[in-house]
Amino acid sequence: MNRKEATQQILDAKFAKGLTWGEIAKESEHSESWVVTALLGQATMTRNEADKMGKFLELDEQVVQALTQIPHRGDVIDMPPTDPGLYRLYEMLLVYGPTIRELVLEKLGEGIMSAIDFQFDVQKQEDPNGDRIILTMNGKFLPYRKW
Amino acid sequence: MNRKEATQQILDAKFAKGLTWGEIAKESEHSESWVVTALLGQATMTRNEADKMGKFLELDEQVVQALTQIPHRGDVIDMPPTDPGLYRLYEMLLVYGPTIRELVLEKLGEGIMSAIDFQFDVQKQEDPNGDRIILTMNGKFLPYRKW
Amino acid sequence: MNRKEATQQILDAKFAKGLTWGEIAKESEHSESWVVTALLGQATMTRNEADKMGKFLELDEQVVQALTQIPHRGDVIDMPPTDPGLYRLYEMLLVYGPTIRELVLEKLGEGIMSAIDFQFDVQKQEDPNGDRIILTMNGKFLPYRKW
Amino acid sequence: MNRKEATQQILDAKFAKGLTWGEIAKESEHSESWVVTALLGQATMTRNEADKMGKFLELDEQVVQALTQIPHRGDVIDMPPTDPGLYRLYEMLLVYGPTIRELVLEKLGEGIMSAIDFQFDVQKQEDPNGDRIILTMNGKFLPYRKW
Amino acid sequence: MNRKEATQQILDAKFAKGLTWGEIAKESEHSESWVVTALLGQATMTRNEADKMGKFLELDEQVVQALTQIPHRGDVIDMPPTDPGLYRLYEMLLVYGPTIRELVLEKLGEGIMSAIDFQFDVQKQEDPNGDRIILTMNGKFLPYRKW
Amino acid sequence: MNRKEATQQILDAKFAKGLTWGEIAKESEHSESWVVTALLGQATMTRNEADKMGKFLELDEQVVQALTQIPHRGDVIDMPPTDPGLYRLYEMLLVYGPTIRELVLEKLGEGIMSAIDFQFDVQKQEDPNGDRIILTMNGKFLPYRKW
Amino acid sequence: MNRKEATQQILDAKFAKGLTWGEIAKESEHSESWVVTALLGQATMTRNEADKMGKFLELDEQVVQALTQIPHRGDVIDMPPTDPGLYRLYEMLLVYGPTIRELVLEKLGEGIMSAIDFQFDVQKQEDPNGDRIILTMNGKFLPYRKW
Amino acid sequence: MNRKEATQQILDAKFAKGLTWGEIAKESEHSESWVVTALLGQATMTRNEADKMGKFLELDEQVVQALTQIPHRGDVIDMPPTDPGLYRLYEMLLVYGPTIRELVLEKLGEGIMSAIDFQFDVQKQEDPNGDRIILTMNGKFLPYRKW
Amino acid sequence: MNRKEATQQILDAKFAKGLTWGEIAKESEHSESWVVTALLGQATMTRNEADKMGKFLELDEQVVQALTQIPHRGDVIDMPPTDPGLYRLYEMLLVYGPTIRELVLEKLGEGIMSAIDFQFDVQKQEDPNGDRIILTMNGKFLPYRKW
Amino acid sequence: MNRKEATQQILDAKFAKGLTWGEIAKESEHSESWVVTALLGQATMTRNEADKMGKFLELDEQVVQALTQIPHRGDVIDMPPTDPGLYRLYEMLLVYGPTIRELVLEKLGEGIMSAIDFQFDVQKQEDPNGDRIILTMNGKFLPYRKW
Repeated sequence: MNRKEATQQILDAKFAKGLTWGEIAKESEHSESWVVTALLGQATMTRNEADKMGKFLELDEQVVQALTQIPHRGDVIDMPPTDPGLYRLYEMLLVYGPTIRELVLEKLGEGIMSAIDFQFDVQKQEDPNGDRIILTMNGKFLPYRKW
Repeated sequence: MNRKEATQQILDAKFAKGLTWGEIAKESEHSESWVVTALLGQATMTRNEADKMGKFLELDEQVVQALTQIPHRGDVIDMPPTDPGLYRLYEMLLVYGPTIRELVLEKLGEGIMSAIDFQFDVQKQEDPNGDRIILTMNGKFLPYRKW
Repeated sequence: MNRKEATQQILDAKFAKGLTWGEIAKESEHSESWVVTALLGQATMTRNEADKMGKFLELDEQVVQALTQIPHRGDVIDMPPTDPGLYRLYEMLLVYGPTIRELVLEKLGEGIMSAIDFQFDVQKQEDPNGDRIILTMNGKFLPYRKW
Repeated sequence: MNRKEATQQILDAKFAKGLTWGEIAKESEHSESWVVTALLGQATMTRNEADKMGKFLELDEQVVQALTQIPHRGDVIDMPPTDPGLYRLYEMLLVYGPTIRELVLEKLGEGIMSAIDFQFDVQKQEDPNGDRIILTMNGKFLPYRKW
Repeated sequence: MNRKEATQQILDAKFAKGLTWGEIAKESEHSESWVVTALLGQATMTRNEADKMGKFLELDEQVVQALTQIPHRGDVIDMPPTDPGLYRLYEMLLVYGPTIRELVLEKLGEGIMSAIDFQFDVQKQEDPNGDRIILTMNGKFLPYRKW
Repeated sequence: MNRKEATQQILDAKFAKGLTWGEIAKESEHSESWVVTALLGQATMTRNEADKMGKFLELDEQVVQALTQIPHRGDVIDMPPTDPGLYRLYEMLLVYGPTIRELVLEKLGEGIMSAIDFQFDVQKQEDPNGDRIILTMNGKFLPYRKW
Repeated sequence: MNRKEATQQILDAKFAKGLTWGEIAKESEHSESWVVTALLGQATMTRNEADKMGKFLELDEQVVQALTQIPHRGDVIDMPPTDPGLYRLYEMLLVYGPTIRELVLEKLGEGIMSAIDFQFDVQKQEDPNGDRIILTMNGKFLPYRKW
Repeated sequence: MNRKEATQQILDAKFAKGLTWGEIAKESEHSESWVVTALLGQATMTRNEADKMGKFLELDEQVVQALTQIPHRGDVIDMPPTDPGLYRLYEMLLVYGPTIRELVLEKLGEGIMSAIDFQFDVQKQEDPNGDRIILTMNGKFLPYRKW
Repeated sequence: MNRKEATQQILDAKFAKGLTWGEIAKESEHSESWVVTALLGQATMTRNEADKMGKFLELDEQVVQALTQIPHRGDVIDMPPTDPGLYRLYEMLLVYGPTIRELVLEKLGEGIMSAIDFQFDVQKQEDPNGDRIILTMNGKFLPYRKW
Repeated sequence: MNRKEATQQILDAKFAKGLTWGEIAKESEHSESWVVTALLGQATMTRNEADKMGKFLELDEQVVQALTQIPHRGDVIDMPPTDPGLYRLYEMLLVYGPTIRELVLEKLGEGIMSAIDFQFDVQKQEDPNGDRIILTMNGKFLPYRKW
């Protein structure tokens, strides 16, 4: 079973059971954002983690196994993304990427923000002028090596 | 004078005076991340804001005027970006974009995070295992309209 | 069932029953342009709205469910479009886009026309020199934020 | 003088004189949207029309001549557009294009909306929940020929 | 049944019956070039026209129905085309397109040759130095509108 | 002097003298369509032919020489073309290319229409329902070789 | 049966019978390079030629018929090719293409080497320093027409 | 001086002196095809070889030096090429590339034809049915390594 | 059976038997890096080599046969790669490629590092500051030929 | 002064002085591969390092300053590269990338080889069958984070 079919079966099980990502994350030992990433096929679970999900969502053994195999990451969306929700993230990079780069270089030195030793979080912030989304990214600074 | 030439003159003035973005932002009335964005040609200053910057960085009148004109945004970097610091942001979208989208839809409903009513912040977080970068994005939730 | 298969079944049902979009819209509680958008898989119906359509068009439960799931938008047509009817809209953007942008900036200030808080309408205008199409787009103005 | 240089000189003259597009259009015999289109190099003026603009904006003879030459249309923006204001128009086509096509086919028959025998208008609509932009496109219906 | 499957069944029926396009066109009420276009899925037949073809080629009802549905045009060949016969047409546009544009503008004024109110014809011209192909395109002139 | 600069000088000379392509072609020994092609830098003149044009248009010796050098063809327009007049020709290929290919194969056998041993003609056809453009292409048939 | 399936069945038959292209070509009336081209779906056999191949390779009637139908050429490999053997041919064009063009123009005049009235041959040349491949292309010179 | 400017000066010198590539090659110690390749900036001359060319063509010292510097190969033409003469070579790869690959694998084993230990030759072959071009490529066979 | 299906069956067999690449390589007569390459469908085994793998992994005869057929190389990953592990290799080429080229040219002369007569090795290097990966590439130097 | 102009002046100075990269590296405090990388504008020197190079190569103050500014990396070569020496590195990724990925995952766990905490080395290995190039890459292993 390839990873995309596994993802589809997970989404179907979630829909059939009427579960939210929040409820699924509570059942696992990880944050909401990591668990959703793994269930969407962009991170890898241990056999134990996958078993827990398998029982909760009543997944087939094949789907559980798929969750334990290291995925080929980044192959789910085409770039530039057509969905407006994804495109806005792409646009933030287009417009604000150079600013982020300048501030990282000034505050931490010549290096980059890792996308591997990395985590993120999505929260709703209530606001009388319209609710807001707070997306926090947290990545290790990796300085360039000289040799 | 086009906006890219203005940006180059601003970067040259900053280098010649040995200023940091932090020092430049302190002089202005705005956050570091917004001021850098405006000076890199991706946001617009009022005449007053531009004058202040013009005096502090000793910029030509033409550069000051350029800062007050609404720019054509997003034309600075090619996609996918080749610079590793920018590419990692692109990769976060490739790998984690679908998760962010799912969590926004679940927590706020059918809609998107605005990239227009939007702000962000870059901070260094000291860590004995290696310092980290905290990038916080804050955008208004825009629900889809039915009609 | 993925959304494209659902769309195909809806188009087949519409053809088999000899219905027009106008008749289908009359049955729903929404405008013609929104209902067609939802049935083509680019907007989401509530369970009630989907049930109504399901009964009118005699759709399978799976198709009805698909109508209630938030779609990945914008994945139906390749760009640039090859169909002449769609290409002309693309061409209007190529030729007149810069003018529209200038007029929005002058009349409302620095910001954009939202594509999320947005609606549109298509009407026939009879004309002795050849009938005309009136396409009206109505989007909320979103001003850029400074922070 | 090529058309892009002429456009730049026109924009510079408009900025230097502190004129709005609305004031410039009032001086000409045409609508705001057509005049801006012509001054941005996507439509052609007669010698009389160009002379009027030349006097009002104090343009060089070379710029006036450029306004009378038929331009190579559509070469100003790259696709997909990076500027958020232009991208939203592109996104409307991605998401709503298929709906527009269906409604044109149903209401007028097999054919397309012309982008040549075409005009458009941009208006501000005041709204207590946030002002809106009304973009009205008006194109001749062209039926496909059989032979 | 989608349009490409219908096209394949038509080509198979033509091959099985040993018919030429010329013989098929004679049976219909239209020119050879239009009939082939419709049978290849780039134009639409009335029910009567489709029935006639259905009987002559012994097509299934589903194929006949497909012929009556308005197709999404232009989705058959990739660009640039790899087949030498199609590429030469593409090359003619690359090399001679600017000339054609100049002559249209000079002879008819500012406007274009319509691809909608359009017909064409392909003929063999015998020639002792090697036969020639005469491809005649006939399109309505559409003048640009001013408003 | 490269060929594009030569083309620009020719267009400027034509504009300054108020000449039409028709008048220029009359002065040369060739058809309108060939002469325009050569002057736009997509065909090559003999020294005599170039001298004649040089005198008539009062061109510099460098421009005259450029007309005698074999050009790198097809490098003037980007594909797909953005100008509506050129795009319609591209669209004809998208929509009608497969039909043209079928008819050539049926009428002349397995082979192609040459774009080298090729000529074309553009004419205005007056029509009370709107004038039409007749574009006639005439290319040698080249049969595939077996060996 | 489409042409790619036919090709696969031919390759399977060749593998199952342990035949070389050389042995297959001997059975046919054509050169090795042409026969392989036809069997790979880039040239067309007469019914007689296809029958001979059908008997020798024990192909199904459907495969034999496919060999007699004019293929859509050039749709087998993506460009640039990823296979090293094909890429080197692409690279020869990148590096040596301009030289070949100059020598053809000088030796034969303004025109091109036909890819239609064309044949080629691949031979092994034994060499103590490492065997070599001799690839000989032989194409008719086609002079550009003036009219 | 970059290599492209050097190439232009060489072409200008060749034109001004009325020399052919054949005459230039005779003066050098190499084949016509190699000398043209080097003068077009796709191969490197020794100082002696470059001096000889410099004297014969009366080139500046800077141009002579450029001829001795190793070029960045393959950056002269865009792919796919638009010039018909270059495109036909590209088309030969599209249509006949798979055949060439099969024959190399069968005749020499698993490996490729080198584009580095490689030479080629262009000759005119007179023919009463139209002259032909013989393009001979000669490359070392490189077998894949196992380890 | 095509090569990708064979690869999938090999990966499934490896997973089901709980084998590592190291254990599989020990069973074969080749290095780890070559064996994995062959099993992933980018190199070719002899019948004996494939039989050995077939017995060890209990593969079907069809899979064993697939391992003996010369593959079309390089068709497994899209470029630029989206998976972070592959992208970093791509980035090394973007950033360090020009340096590698300069050092090869200086140390060995005008030529290239072969990717055909080539082997590589991947090793873990333990390091208290974090383990490291040592990737060693070993390719034959191929000097450019003059002729 | 932008970085590309600085690079050109460095290459010109190296050529004029007849220096090798090896001699330049000896003068600096770093490895050959790092120094060349920095001088080609893909790494950053301290003021001291840049001064040393400036004296040795007799560079202008502007060039020395450019060497101390953090570059936008990866913008020197287009992808896929056209130069054969660079293309072979790209091809190694196409063909062997999946193997490298598998071996890294097996030997070090789920993670990647860093391209930031990274160094490499290029050496010549003499060999009677033809000299070889040994390219050694050494990158830190970065394990994916769970959270």
